Amino acid sequence: MEVPVRSKGAAPSPWSPRECELLGVTLELLQEHGYDRLSLDAVATTARASKATLYRRWPTKAELVFAAFVEGTRQVAVDPDTGTLRGDLLQLGKQISAHVGTHASTIRAVLMEISRSDKLAAMLQEQFLDQRKALMSSVLARAVDRGEIQASAITEDLWDMLPGYLTYRSVLTGRAPSRRTVQDLVDNVLIPSLTRHNG
Amino acid sequence: MEVPVRSKGAAPSPWSPRECELLGVTLELLQEHGYDRLSLDAVATTARASKATLYRRWPTKAELVFAAFVEGTRQVAVDPDTGTLRGDLLQLGKQISAHVGTHASTIRAVLMEISRSDKLAAMLQEQFLDQRKALMSSVLARAVDRGEIQASAITEDLWDMLPGYLTYRSVLTGRAPSRRTVQDLVDNVLIPSLTRHNG
Repeated sequence: MEVPVRSKGAAPSPWSPRECELLGVTLELLQEHGYDRLSLDAVATTARASKATLYRRWPTKAELVFAAFVEGTRQVAVDPDTGTLRGDLLQLGKQISAHVGTHASTIRAVLMEISRSDKLAAMLQEQFLDQRKALMSSVLARAVDRGEIQASAITEDLWDMLPGYLTYRSVLTGRAPSRRTVQDLVDNVLIPSLTRHNG
Repeated sequence: MEVPVRSKGAAPSPWSPRECELLGVTLELLQEHGYDRLSLDAVATTARASKATLYRRWPTKAELVFAAFVEGTRQVAVDPDTGTLRGDLLQLGKQISAHVGTHASTIRAVLMEISRSDKLAAMLQEQFLDQRKALMSSVLARAVDRGEIQASAITEDLWDMLPGYLTYRSVLTGRAPSRRTVQDLVDNVLIPSLTRHNG
């Protein structure tokens, strides 16, 4: 049995260490060459893997790239657990900005493929968004436990404001979020919203 | 001289009435067939225009589709001016949700083209985002004038929270925003943020 790779606080990976390596190579080549010019041949050659191995796991370029992006995110999406709500949100915001900033063009390419494939859309939901939501939920639950916010101030439907806005900035505009953007978002928007039912 | 089409409160169109008609036809065909299957031939035939006319204004499919989307947005992006900040934000949120919901797949396709073209990226900034920002600025300026909010509570860099999050929801997730999403966003997030310096 293969032992799944697991970074501290992150969800367990569905891939073996060797598969994670292949996905890591894919992500590197994507950043270097972009989605359009990435070939499965180049991934196989760089990773010294057989093409059969690649195709068996990921039958299309879109699936390989999607898996590489999700795995890359899983590895950096670590629960910050800094001891305060503000600290946790700042940390998450920094993580997300760095990650979506680095992979903005990959995300754009993957989106295009997702709109063409129901299978990829389902994978996005199960493998990516559900995981991110669980992380945000534990950050907020701890803040409620510490008495920093009221549970009633949490709007379930808007759980993805922080990652959503930061992703929008990197992927849909030319204004990648700065460290200051994250700080303003936390101090001027998210904390005032989450503490609006306090005392 | 051609008279520019202008809807109440919207910025003036850079196109003649006939050009607007061509862009309207493009947008309809896009919704019907999607970006991949749209052809300039079909636009010319449907609009009873010569292909030369189309190509003179919009040399590539990407430019035509981009212009059609921006023009469609310009026509619906009307300053609500309801008399209250809450009313204005709800109205803007409804407008944006309806528009990005209808054109989500076109936006995805345009994004992909934008990441391949600096010219389109500059057009996105000048013809689309700057206009949207001006609209949001007047909504906030009126709220300051009415004494509803303090000018110091406005975070310049985060002007696009409302359109950004709603666009993210429609374009990057399968959870298109509902009327309730817009209401929660305004009442639970934007108003608490903008009134945090009050009294």
